[in-house]
Formats: sequence, structure tokens, C-alpha cells
Amino acid sequence: MIYFVTSNKGKFAEAREVFEDLVQKNIGYPELQANTLEEVVAFGLVDVTARLKVPVIIEDAGLFIEGLNGFPGVYSAYVQKTLGNPGILKLMEGVEDRRAYFASIVGYAEPGMEPVAFRGEVWGTIGFEARGAMGFGYDPIFYLGDKSMAQVETEEKNKMSHRGRSMRALKEWLDNRQLRRN
Amino acid sequence: MIYFVTSNKGKFAEAREVFEDLVQKNIGYPELQANTLEEVVAFGLVDVTARLKVPVIIEDAGLFIEGLNGFPGVYSAYVQKTLGNPGILKLMEGVEDRRAYFASIVGYAEPGMEPVAFRGEVWGTIGFEARGAMGFGYDPIFYLGDKSMAQVETEEKNKMSHRGRSMRALKEWLDNRQLRRN
Repeated sequence: MIYFVTSNKGKFAEAREVFEDLVQKNIGYPELQANTLEEVVAFGLVDVTARLKVPVIIEDAGLFIEGLNGFPGVYSAYVQKTLGNPGILKLMEGVEDRRAYFASIVGYAEPGMEPVAFRGEVWGTIGFEARGAMGFGYDPIFYLGDKSMAQVETEEKNKMSHRGRSMRALKEWLDNRQLRRN
Repeated sequence: MIYFVTSNKGKFAEAREVFEDLVQKNIGYPELQANTLEEVVAFGLVDVTARLKVPVIIEDAGLFIEGLNGFPGVYSAYVQKTLGNPGILKLMEGVEDRRAYFASIVGYAEPGMEPVAFRGEVWGTIGFEARGAMGFGYDPIFYLGDKSMAQVETEEKNKMSHRGRSMRALKEWLDNRQLRRN
């Protein structure tokens, strides 16, 4: 059994598709104002592992827009709350380079080992309007071809999403470790 | 003598106008992704006072725009770096409520006492263009009447600025404490 420390039900639902024995633990941790998601996760794990002496996962994700110098990046959650998708679409008016990627970093730790972290990315473009009602956050304005991420079922989304990828990378690492031990 | 832990020369110059015996110390500290500047400062002070056993100041500031739900707020430095003033002006297109305030929180600690914190604010409006070359950051788009904050000399700016106010509030507190002790 692994604890996933998060307050976000959408994230938990996605991670649960990869790890069946996952338990949501909403106990919070200090999130750093850092330049990279990796730093945020590493700092958070120090806090979480000091309190929970069991296998734990934490995850941080962000949307990085090329034409906006990586904005909203590490602060994607705050920007979603204040400006939302209409704010992003406004900022993108007249911006030619609409390429963007979602990144997810999942950190894993258990007592007596060095924490590990895995990255997942998915590249797409920022659309000209919000579409779709599935997913959450920036999904409606993030396009893969002619479909937004919010027009894709969770199961399908998981196959290609940043979070699906980082979670599966961790899963693979854990499975391989198990094999090495046997 | 007081150490001001900051990497920002502009901030240091402004604080130096209030505290003559101030020394800039560029040693960094973890900045939290928090909802308020007060939380950022309190968390940072814990780290700084663990390393420096002398009187220390840290300060965090932000621009809070009413019509943008408080954006960029606690993340003002990051937003200045990525979107800059042109990004803010773009977001403000068509927004009626252009009221905004700068807030500064200064935290002070010395060995053997509970840390204290003081707030300074200055209210103005977001202009329709950037003006002036003094100051730094958002000063050119933050207007007090028909002048931007970047069209005002440092000494004059200090009299009314958020940082001048928080620093003077701390100065007053320190002076009064000195009086009480004598």
C-alpha cells in the first residue's frame, strides 16, 4: 500500500489507474517557490517522510507554454485559480508559438531509502478556445491535434498524459526492483 | 547592525534609506508557495534564523490587482520574469477595475525573541502603458494619480511606498522597544 499525499481528487483518480493499492492522504506539505517541479517535489518529500513512515508518493505538475517563457509553469495551480483559462487565452492573443507541454514529476520515498523521482511530459498546443468538460485545470485549452485534453476519456488520457507517464515510470521502477529482489 | 537577507539590490537600496546600519546578505532561503506574503516571510525566517545568530530582516512583496483576483500576488517576481509588464497590460485589456496595491511584509528576528512582522501597502491603479525608468519591476505600470511609480525619485518613493511603510513600521517598533528598555 502506498499513500499519495494530495488534496486533488482528479490527480488521485488518474494515479489510481496505475496503482491499485493507492490511498489518498490529504495532509498537505510546504510547496516551494522554485524554478523546477523537481525542486518542489524534493522539498515536499523531506517534509512528508518526516511525518509518514510508510511508502509515499507526491506529485507536482505544470503547464509550460513556449511563447510565454514557460509561464505558468511551477505556478500553474495559482494561475488557474486567479486568471483561469480565459486569462491564458488572452495572453496568447497574437503569440505565434503556441507549443506547450504538461510536465509531471512524481516523487516516491519509503523508510530507509533515498527518494526517487520520475518525469512525464506530453506536448501539444494551446488552442484558440476552451473545449470539452472532462479532466480539469488547463485540459480544455490544451490540444493534441484537433482534440482538447478535456475531450478525452480518463482511461485514454492516462495513456498519453504527463501524469500517466510519470506514474507508469515509477510503477515500472518498483516492479523491476521487486524482480531484482526475487 | 542588522542583516537584510535578499538578492535584490533595489530592495536593499530602499531599506537602507530607513536603516543606516543595514548589511546585505545574499544567502537565499526557501520561499513557500503560499496564499499570503506573511506565510512566505514566516517560513523563510525559520530557515534564516537557524543559520544566522544575529538580528535579521527578510522581506517579501507583491502586486495585487483587484480586477485579476489578486494576480500576480505572491508570485509577482516570477510573473515579472516570464510575462513582464507587457503581459500584465495585455491581461488588463477590457478589465474595468484597474485598482491595485503593492504590499510589503518585513519580518524581523534576533536570537532569543519571537519573530515580528510588519505590513506596508500602497494603493494605485494599473496604467494603460509603461512609463518612467526609475524603480524596478512593476513600478512603470503602477500609477499614483497621473504619475507612475517609476517616475518618482527613490527618496520620494520611499515616503509613500509599501516597502518604505513596512520598513518604517519595523523601525518604529525597534525604537520604541529601545525606549521601553531605557
